Amino acid sequence: MWPDNRLRDLFSIDYPIIQAPMAGASGLDMAVAVSEAGGLGSLACAMFEADRLRSVLVSAQEQTRRPLNLNFFAHASPRNDLERDAGWLGRLAAYYAEFGLSIPAELPVGSVQPFDEARCAIVEEFAPAVVSFHFGLPDAGLVARLRSAGCKIISSATTIAEARWLAANGCDAIIAQGYEAGGHRGVFLTDSLDSQMGTMALVPQIADAVDLPVIAAGGIGDARGIVAAFALGASAVQMGTAYLFTEEAVISPAYRKSLEDAAGAETAVCNVISGRPARVLTNRLVSELGPMSTDAPAFPKGFAAIGPLRDAAEQLGKTDFSAHYCGQSAALGRKATAFSLTRALAADALRSFEPGPAKKRHSAPS
Amino acid sequence: MWPDNRLRDLFSIDYPIIQAPMAGASGLDMAVAVSEAGGLGSLACAMFEADRLRSVLVSAQEQTRRPLNLNFFAHASPRNDLERDAGWLGRLAAYYAEFGLSIPAELPVGSVQPFDEARCAIVEEFAPAVVSFHFGLPDAGLVARLRSAGCKIISSATTIAEARWLAANGCDAIIAQGYEAGGHRGVFLTDSLDSQMGTMALVPQIADAVDLPVIAAGGIGDARGIVAAFALGASAVQMGTAYLFTEEAVISPAYRKSLEDAAGAETAVCNVISGRPARVLTNRLVSELGPMSTDAPAFPKGFAAIGPLRDAAEQLGKTDFSAHYCGQSAALGRKATAFSLTRALAADALRSFEPGPAKKRHSAPS
Repeated sequence: MWPDNRLRDLFSIDYPIIQAPMAGASGLDMAVAVSEAGGLGSLACAMFEADRLRSVLVSAQEQTRRPLNLNFFAHASPRNDLERDAGWLGRLAAYYAEFGLSIPAELPVGSVQPFDEARCAIVEEFAPAVVSFHFGLPDAGLVARLRSAGCKIISSATTIAEARWLAANGCDAIIAQGYEAGGHRGVFLTDSLDSQMGTMALVPQIADAVDLPVIAAGGIGDARGIVAAFALGASAVQMGTAYLFTEEAVISPAYRKSLEDAAGAETAVCNVISGRPARVLTNRLVSELGPMSTDAPAFPKGFAAIGPLRDAAEQLGKTDFSAHYCGQSAALGRKATAFSLTRALAADALRSFEPGPAKKRHSAPS
Repeated sequence: MWPDNRLRDLFSIDYPIIQAPMAGASGLDMAVAVSEAGGLGSLACAMFEADRLRSVLVSAQEQTRRPLNLNFFAHASPRNDLERDAGWLGRLAAYYAEFGLSIPAELPVGSVQPFDEARCAIVEEFAPAVVSFHFGLPDAGLVARLRSAGCKIISSATTIAEARWLAANGCDAIIAQGYEAGGHRGVFLTDSLDSQMGTMALVPQIADAVDLPVIAAGGIGDARGIVAAFALGASAVQMGTAYLFTEEAVISPAYRKSLEDAAGAETAVCNVISGRPARVLTNRLVSELGPMSTDAPAFPKGFAAIGPLRDAAEQLGKTDFSAHYCGQSAALGRKATAFSLTRALAADALRSFEPGPAKKRHSAPS
């Protein structure tokens, strides 16, 4: 028996386990598998143009009738700042020279776009159970339209102030994103990483601060973390890195190998890949120019700056410039399918919640 | 019923709650109160000369017959490095000028001394139930002598590698010190803060890596954290910041006020106070020269460098240079006595462990 059913009820899901949306690593197959297993699968939509978004949502509708979460970014589009962009490209000049590449004339914004009117119209049409945002929330008008369409709205808070802001601006639940989490920090009200707390500290403080159910994220690698999250006051968990080990993860063999070797590896929160802080497996770029650099360009222009270097290095079998997002629990990862992982996590957690003598608290997914 | 009794049995304590030793903030009164309440009180001995150590232990014996933990540092004494010290004093020169102070000619090591032969002889004589170390372990010979005297040995691991090292070098249990923790990081096998994990990620990985009971530390602010720690695989918790709110904390009114205001405050892991990374409430020194500086002197010489500045600023009512150690859970702190806090934490945790319908998971200490 789950000790708290608020998010199971709110999202109409069997298991309060949300697969984290991971743009560039999780696709429709993973989201569908997790939702079919009884959790909440998430589709990372931040890199989809409108046409692509529509076609993926048509496929999703064909593949599952279970609740799904669509995730978008809510960042402000970067202003033109040629001087800043040129400065960052200057920092990268030696790398471009090393690979015999010419430095780009400018940094295009690329495919990572904030949620907007056009995307909202498509989402309204499909009315998914849940829409989640990263980097705050889009304009209040768009949030209101999604709510009117019946979508539940969630977003990530990395501080108490952000949790309160999200609660006051239309969220139905708050993702408490602890510092252990892989990928981009959702942080949106501060530039200071000193504000960023670990999951153990963040979840109870957010649970105390807002009158909404809390989803714990960051460092939760197996059922032990799920049980711990509920003890801290969470009503659900969001797990990313654990799902990178599933067959459905759309990642390169090099990325997969890095994860499997990650038990002794270090991760760092860096802004030198995209322009915003994100936790990745440390690599040459992160070590040499970061992890945090005051010269990094506005998000998401960093991607364009390192793209040619990443491609050239990967052709040589090197991950020196690769964005291998990874949380701090990679050592707990186990190969599985997304369906079997979801079921195993739920079963192991439920076993721990049962009254009775001390139990084995986790097992490998079958 | 506690779900795991390994550390209750090993230390012969009623409640698996360890008050963290906090040199300069926790004294004998706090340690005695926690042990009398049924937890494990810790006496921070790192700043005691041999004579003082002996007199404190005589007092301790008079005040409680319960198990106590004596904590020492196991750092290497710093080599003489006049150039480095002068460089750091140069970084501080503008502050010295601001207060009309003359810059010290050199940086003395001061009162923070590593555990040694003389201290070992005194500890053997008193044979406390537990001896804990920070920054690794002292020489193997000293560890062996303490074990022969019947003391259980524990130390902090901040990485999996450190946990394995401590297990191989004579520890009876491992403190898994998550990144949320206030005060000095126990880190001793690496200089990289990227290796430092949050409690949610660190505890299960250390529990998997070593065949010893694990004490969870970092970000545990109330009974919710205790229950979570056990779910992650811990057999006890160590809590520091929560005990800074007790009457027995030997801290200045300004420090106490900073803690009470800490709900919205930021902490940072900095080396600009002592020379080693420690989590403190951010202040002017940390913001302007840190949090981490490659120029910081060897531990513990940093204390001598900022001492005159701290004193001068505090006389003006400013905490610009004060070492206000604080974990990330200060917002969960409640005024109490060390005895009542220990009892309330234990009672609240036990209530959560009882089988039955969902319960209120925490209450304020009475």
